[in-house]
Amino acid sequence: MNIYEESLSAHKNLRGKLEVVPKVPLHTTQDLSVYYSPGVGAVSEHLANNHEDTPLYTGTNNSVAVVSDGSSVLGFGNIGPEGALPVMEGKAMLFKVFGGIDAFPIVLSTQDPDEIIETVVAIAPSFGGINLEDISAPNCFYVEDELKKRLKMPIMHDDQHGTAVVVLAGLINALKVVGKKMENLEIVIIGAGAAGTAIAKLLHAAKVRNIVVVDSKQAISQSRNDLTSFKQELAKFNTLNKTGSLAEVLTGADVVIGVSKAGLIKPEMVSSMNQDAIVFALANPEPEIYPDVAKKAGAAVIATGRSDLPNQVNNVLAFPGMFRGALDNRCSITEKHKLAAAEAIASLIKNPSAEMIIPSALDSNVVKVVSSIFKP
Amino acid sequence: MNIYEESLSAHKNLRGKLEVVPKVPLHTTQDLSVYYSPGVGAVSEHLANNHEDTPLYTGTNNSVAVVSDGSSVLGFGNIGPEGALPVMEGKAMLFKVFGGIDAFPIVLSTQDPDEIIETVVAIAPSFGGINLEDISAPNCFYVEDELKKRLKMPIMHDDQHGTAVVVLAGLINALKVVGKKMENLEIVIIGAGAAGTAIAKLLHAAKVRNIVVVDSKQAISQSRNDLTSFKQELAKFNTLNKTGSLAEVLTGADVVIGVSKAGLIKPEMVSSMNQDAIVFALANPEPEIYPDVAKKAGAAVIATGRSDLPNQVNNVLAFPGMFRGALDNRCSITEKHKLAAAEAIASLIKNPSAEMIIPSALDSNVVKVVSSIFKP
Repeated sequence: MNIYEESLSAHKNLRGKLEVVPKVPLHTTQDLSVYYSPGVGAVSEHLANNHEDTPLYTGTNNSVAVVSDGSSVLGFGNIGPEGALPVMEGKAMLFKVFGGIDAFPIVLSTQDPDEIIETVVAIAPSFGGINLEDISAPNCFYVEDELKKRLKMPIMHDDQHGTAVVVLAGLINALKVVGKKMENLEIVIIGAGAAGTAIAKLLHAAKVRNIVVVDSKQAISQSRNDLTSFKQELAKFNTLNKTGSLAEVLTGADVVIGVSKAGLIKPEMVSSMNQDAIVFALANPEPEIYPDVAKKAGAAVIATGRSDLPNQVNNVLAFPGMFRGALDNRCSITEKHKLAAAEAIASLIKNPSAEMIIPSALDSNVVKVVSSIFKP
Repeated sequence: MNIYEESLSAHKNLRGKLEVVPKVPLHTTQDLSVYYSPGVGAVSEHLANNHEDTPLYTGTNNSVAVVSDGSSVLGFGNIGPEGALPVMEGKAMLFKVFGGIDAFPIVLSTQDPDEIIETVVAIAPSFGGINLEDISAPNCFYVEDELKKRLKMPIMHDDQHGTAVVVLAGLINALKVVGKKMENLEIVIIGAGAAGTAIAKLLHAAKVRNIVVVDSKQAISQSRNDLTSFKQELAKFNTLNKTGSLAEVLTGADVVIGVSKAGLIKPEMVSSMNQDAIVFALANPEPEIYPDVAKKAGAAVIATGRSDLPNQVNNVLAFPGMFRGALDNRCSITEKHKLAAAEAIASLIKNPSAEMIIPSALDSNVVKVVSSIFKP
């Protein structure tokens, strides 16, 4: 059996990967009286009069909704809530295993951004935080922005910010390997969707001056007159006003970050880059270029999204600790937190090398250092 | 400490009564590949193309949302989602302990019935069933009716139907004790809210011919011109067109079922009832009349909502088995199922007596017999 056959079979055996279980047993009528009626009435009355105490008496101190409309799932794109549900169940498992967080998958029968917002606002009192997942661009930007305005709780679209944080963490250590500085880099990002946009913004906040984002047509620059408002923002990061194809803008670049499709980076493109090129080929499951090919073409440091290759850029390094920290400190997740989280993840690699710029997804220290940056 | 102090303290220690846990461990990168990326992609792709298989590969075969807008919680009335949340967490515990069902509390920031409906429809793909809870009348009738039209899954407002099923179960056995028949009864129900309305409808379906529902003003009859459409339905059950106060319509009645307020049934009202009167005083935590007082006034069989008194009418006898059966057989919950569930619960008491007409809430046989009535 290959991994896909094995996964289908495992899922069919489990019929759902999560259980919702009581923290205490309910054996006696006394148990029922304490945890349900009539005793619970005292808790209800207290919370009705003291809303701010809700996380002290209910699970909202530790619960996250994993919300998806199924519009941009894995490499499949828009496959709807049914296709999204097993992914969201898996995400909820990761929340519990890595962050100790009680996450519940909420897949939606609507893909209208305003209906998504109203639905999340309506169910928000049940949760301590909202993890948005696999919602397509540009809806994901609007949905996240509006929810952050309307709800006082940690809200994060993980495809954007989880990815951006781990990319920045990897880049911090890759620069140590090649001896370059953020301020001097020319970076090309392939893909102007959720991940590409968030990576560009976070790298800009991390002091990278020249960032060229390439969409399905060509480089995004202020010379183009076909840009959405979201892409107009990205064009501002292209301070050298580079134009043209991926091959053209990659020439002389220091870093390429692919969040696009298998095979888009050709060996000759890597060869055309600046010395000590850094290649993050993050398309999943097939990267934009395989590490052995990129290395032969001259790349100095290579990362992918795959667990079976060195330097895996995996969101699980970021989101469990970020939500853990935000829930424990009852705060939202800001750009400052994202930058600090990337530094914290990078700091776990004491002596970065070409083959070791990012901690393992299974490293239990990661959640500790990431969550600790939220302390006031 | 009294039960309320004990409950407050226990809730503060637990900080949430539920956990969401993976059914299998995630220790290795192989585990991650099978239950998350990339393996889960095969499941997503299959479900995107075969929606009907979703319960075979995800938790929707066993998951229920416990949805409340907090508009009618316990005896408190409209205390909002914060006050409702500890109750819904407790309900979710009961679902797991008694029905093996993974239930998650969803408390809402809206009390607009159309917004409640749109929200539940939006999140419905995440669940196998919807338990509505503590939503005030008459909104609860409209919300449940519309959701049943729009969603193909078991949907039940437990305050209505769970209560009605257990009341009918108790009444079936109470009639054996006093030797009367459904067809000949005169029944008075105190309270025209969610529970009173559903009890009246189910007793009507169970062949009771004369049912007088009393609201906060007086008996509901076709003589009144101040009735909502919901109460006009109830007036049709008052086939003898009885009018007047509770005391007036109770005179000569066989059964009184209180789902109202503490102390509303006076001893002299019980004395005015027909011989072998049956008194269900279900207000919680303080009943409409206490059993010792009702007995002294001439009642033959008495039930309450309290666990510390005989004959407790407790919804936990109905909803776990009803959802268990409906989920396992992928069907909705119909009036036929409610009648059969009541018969099944009643059948567990082999020799009913005045002090024993209803099984214990902790009787593990209940869920088996109730769920088995859903078999095709």
